[in-house]
Amino acid sequence: MPLYQVIAQEDLLTDDIRRRIAGEITRIHTENTGAPAIFVNVLFQDVSPGRLFTAGQPSHTTIIVGQVREGRELAVRQALLQDLAAMWTAETGQSGGELLMAIQEVDPRVAMEAGLIMPAPGDEAAWFAEHEDRLRELGLATP
Amino acid sequence: MPLYQVIAQEDLLTDDIRRRIAGEITRIHTENTGAPAIFVNVLFQDVSPGRLFTAGQPSHTTIIVGQVREGRELAVRQALLQDLAAMWTAETGQSGGELLMAIQEVDPRVAMEAGLIMPAPGDEAAWFAEHEDRLRELGLATP
Amino acid sequence: MPLYQVIAQEDLLTDDIRRRIAGEITRIHTENTGAPAIFVNVLFQDVSPGRLFTAGQPSHTTIIVGQVREGRELAVRQALLQDLAAMWTAETGQSGGELLMAIQEVDPRVAMEAGLIMPAPGDEAAWFAEHEDRLRELGLATP
Repeated sequence: MPLYQVIAQEDLLTDDIRRRIAGEITRIHTENTGAPAIFVNVLFQDVSPGRLFTAGQPSHTTIIVGQVREGRELAVRQALLQDLAAMWTAETGQSGGELLMAIQEVDPRVAMEAGLIMPAPGDEAAWFAEHEDRLRELGLATP
Repeated sequence: MPLYQVIAQEDLLTDDIRRRIAGEITRIHTENTGAPAIFVNVLFQDVSPGRLFTAGQPSHTTIIVGQVREGRELAVRQALLQDLAAMWTAETGQSGGELLMAIQEVDPRVAMEAGLIMPAPGDEAAWFAEHEDRLRELGLATP
Repeated sequence: MPLYQVIAQEDLLTDDIRRRIAGEITRIHTENTGAPAIFVNVLFQDVSPGRLFTAGQPSHTTIIVGQVREGRELAVRQALLQDLAAMWTAETGQSGGELLMAIQEVDPRVAMEAGLIMPAPGDEAAWFAEHEDRLRELGLATP
């Protein structure tokens, strides 16, 4: 966590653009929240023609849903949306009118990475220190 | 928002039926909630054979998950489910026993359309009035 | 409900392993929660190369998101995660470092199976008794 799901028309993005967007989402999340980059996952899902509708009509809207650990201030979550929207238009040329986004919160006490219950926002440093041996063994760099 | 995700066996629906179901979901949502049709997104996801299991056995269950803006009364959300179930059986012939549905609520303060934080349920008219110029520029009709 | 979504690289699993994992998830959920197996749905989603990134880099992480009915104790939800992680490593060989999981809660009052609003956790027996005729008609065995 976070997990950002990017649901976009299958011919909108190339491998290069996906990689760049994944980097940008990672940057936007870490800069706004202070979370380590290693926590940030970005999943792209392709949409075939005829599978997405807005107002009952075929649509090219892109949908981005971010699932983030619960406990961040509203202003931080709204800043994520603003930065993601600006990034998306810059990278793809789609306007804000073709973009739907939402942030969902996930209780970190029932989220798991590396076989470990995740820390609450702000408790990352203590968590990495506590589990340093296990995280190093799994090849997960400290932040 | 809302976003309705319809997850169904890949050979269950045709393009025509998908379009009709998208129209029906849009109608059901707007009639029950008063939200504008332009907010309603419907995404179909195909399920290949061997990818879905119920009680550990291969299954043809259809899954519909609706993510709606937080703040609607329980009776409204339950009416959505009842109307969706009746529509699904009428359009596809699948019985209620082959349908799993859930409504999730998303905080509208962290949902964005047209580059704008979304209004709370009931505040749509004021939101369209406040952002009329931008919305017209993006080609988004007022409701 | 529950619905467990397993998002994994497309070449990681075979049909046999998917079937075994679906059985294991069903077993883990019913043993930890007491819910009937007939409620447990497992959906596999394949990830093509270049569609998933961790820390901005291409990644083979598996993502498991479980949507369960709201109202279970934290210890039960955490036990689900522990058992799922152990099962995943045993079945696939992926380490905990390649696995991201989260449990989300869904209000059972806005979840529907068999055309019926679902029971709260613990109320299953009364629900099956109340709706016995309809459930039998739909071919849904009592638990």
